[in-house]
Amino acid sequence: MARISDSKERLLSSALELFSERSYANVGVQELCEHAGVKKGSFYYFFKSKQDLMLEALGHQSQAIDRMILTPALGSNLPPLERIEHLFHLTYEFQKSLKEKTGRVRGCFFGNLALELSTQDELIRHRLDRIFRMAITSIRKTVQDAVSVGDLPDIDVTSTAEAILAYWQGVIMLAKVRNDPGLLKELAKGAKEFAIVETKDAAA
Amino acid sequence: MARISDSKERLLSSALELFSERSYANVGVQELCEHAGVKKGSFYYFFKSKQDLMLEALGHQSQAIDRMILTPALGSNLPPLERIEHLFHLTYEFQKSLKEKTGRVRGCFFGNLALELSTQDELIRHRLDRIFRMAITSIRKTVQDAVSVGDLPDIDVTSTAEAILAYWQGVIMLAKVRNDPGLLKELAKGAKEFAIVETKDAAA
Repeated sequence: MARISDSKERLLSSALELFSERSYANVGVQELCEHAGVKKGSFYYFFKSKQDLMLEALGHQSQAIDRMILTPALGSNLPPLERIEHLFHLTYEFQKSLKEKTGRVRGCFFGNLALELSTQDELIRHRLDRIFRMAITSIRKTVQDAVSVGDLPDIDVTSTAEAILAYWQGVIMLAKVRNDPGLLKELAKGAKEFAIVETKDAAA
Repeated sequence: MARISDSKERLLSSALELFSERSYANVGVQELCEHAGVKKGSFYYFFKSKQDLMLEALGHQSQAIDRMILTPALGSNLPPLERIEHLFHLTYEFQKSLKEKTGRVRGCFFGNLALELSTQDELIRHRLDRIFRMAITSIRKTVQDAVSVGDLPDIDVTSTAEAILAYWQGVIMLAKVRNDPGLLKELAKGAKEFAIVETKDAAA
């Protein structure tokens, strides 16, 4: 058994590992405790429920993805459109490393749960919506930079950022269903082609 | 209990309904039988397992989506790029009707299962990969038409079709996590902006 001070961290890390390997429904509290080497009593000391653990795991993973992918890509000194392409390349590296370790493209923790749980759990859906909106805000800033330097015309930057987030998630899905991280590299260029142009129409 | 001749159809229809409402892991054979009004013995007369039912349900739903969305959009007489935009509008109508009926944007049956099961079930992953590839082939033909009439430059039509499929799935995901089908309409224009340009680079 782990020291009590590690137990919470170990449960969060087991949640990330097991929910990514299978799905939320497919993993129970008992198995999470066994994987983490933590007693069931400790689980309920830290978390009210599996949902409660998941909400905290989402926060942790959101910070991790910010640190590993979003900030290095979108906060870099590259020209704005290259930053967006770089987002796909870093995601490729991440999914490739997961495949090397587990044999599988695991996909995006948030995307996986969004499709599994959005019809079933309003609290988790809202949290995922917020995480996606935060990513869209970061992408939007980069799109705005591209417009400012003249690399994109005067487009609808919010819709374009939403489109890029959607494309990013869709490419991760296709990489997962093919178990081929290479698709993230092959389709990265497409992310620079986006521009939701008809602002006036969209607002009408 | 349903007549035996209806039982198989009813089980397939319950599979579509319940797996879309929740998830594959979250619905068991017992519940499927109760929902369909079919005895468990009948289930095992028609299907070896839940996986076996799912594989057949995937085939049925693939035909339904072809008939309801892919063919009316991509096989229409619209100019090629409008056909691609129309794909999003028909998907909007479909998700909106599901939301009106159930309170929820249900998302794409294939996308949902792709993210839930690709790490867990090779047979289902392969079947989903095939279904996505068939859709990509239809989109590819439309992209080729757009190149032929001069609405798109001489791009990599296969990668562009993959990109459009990915974008379509990603927008459905975002609509599901926001429970807002309107996003499919708002982001439809983005689908026309795609063009994976650097063919030579991609092949290198």
